[in-house]
Amino acid sequence: MDELKQQLNFILELDRLKAVYRQALVKSDKNRNENSAEHSWHISMMANTLHKYAEEPINISRVINMLLIHDIVEIDAGDTFAFAAQHELDGQEDKEINAANRIFGLLPEKQFRSMKQLWLEFEEAETADARFAKAMDRVLPLLQNMENEGGSWLRHSVKKSQVINRNIYLDGLAPRLWAYVSEQIDIAVRKGWLLNE
Amino acid sequence: MDELKQQLNFILELDRLKAVYRQALVKSDKNRNENSAEHSWHISMMANTLHKYAEEPINISRVINMLLIHDIVEIDAGDTFAFAAQHELDGQEDKEINAANRIFGLLPEKQFRSMKQLWLEFEEAETADARFAKAMDRVLPLLQNMENEGGSWLRHSVKKSQVINRNIYLDGLAPRLWAYVSEQIDIAVRKGWLLNE
Repeated sequence: MDELKQQLNFILELDRLKAVYRQALVKSDKNRNENSAEHSWHISMMANTLHKYAEEPINISRVINMLLIHDIVEIDAGDTFAFAAQHELDGQEDKEINAANRIFGLLPEKQFRSMKQLWLEFEEAETADARFAKAMDRVLPLLQNMENEGGSWLRHSVKKSQVINRNIYLDGLAPRLWAYVSEQIDIAVRKGWLLNE
Repeated sequence: MDELKQQLNFILELDRLKAVYRQALVKSDKNRNENSAEHSWHISMMANTLHKYAEEPINISRVINMLLIHDIVEIDAGDTFAFAAQHELDGQEDKEINAANRIFGLLPEKQFRSMKQLWLEFEEAETADARFAKAMDRVLPLLQNMENEGGSWLRHSVKKSQVINRNIYLDGLAPRLWAYVSEQIDIAVRKGWLLNE
């Protein structure tokens, strides 16, 4: 099969991410569940808008590429709720690696390798680019829950410490954003949207 | 209002693009209509995958940024069907400029200017970056219609010449892609999905 045909097959396969639904609700669209494709667009725009707050050097194009691809594995592995219990996550990592191999594997070898590598970098969250990308993926649901009077936090009895842990990537990396997020978490506790255990 | 607050308001406003529905159908999700947010993600991934076919120098990061923002004006101005009659498009340009001023205008001045400028560059489709971005925006619906046995072409009795005109940006810019698209258009005519007037 020629390379273009492989690439087009990959592009068509991506359509399926529009059918992977998350816990977050789209307030603007009758509070239906959000899908992972539109979520990926939204956080890419968020990174685009906020990247100047990173105080370590980041490459915003790489960050955006990471965000565009970060959820593609969900086509096979499904979305897992941010605050799922450990037993619900058993086997998830293997499922995601298999998914990366199958879906990125639709591409020509060289593109497959570089896309899988970028996805792994995001997952490992060690480089500044990956930490900033992770932070975007986590701050947007926080903003959405604040707009939705607690949203999925309230529905799932989420604790303050869980939300702090998920957003800790910002600490040091983007202090101004971290201060804002911490403030919002305190407000959410006061409103009863997060449990203050 | 401080800059961060302005930027967060902009980010939350973007949620509304998930409620702007297009003529294209999501085959993977029960053939529901596609929204402009997930469409923007999909064509950004397409650009990411195919940018090496451009034979003029393009800056893929700028192309992706254009694609991420190109439909944001639809939050106020709505989506117009690709093959709408001229009278249905009257006033659309003004609506879109007002939308750009209002929505990008939520951002701090400097970001407002640069985002509006990038959007205008896309609309004018004169630079190589903008022509490649436009091409992505147009090739994906073609692939979707081919996958959907004619899809929106068939529902709206679209002509071969209209599809050629919409995809002409590829001619010269990305000859390999243009050859593929021309081939697909011929197949669509043979199958009766496009009118050969």
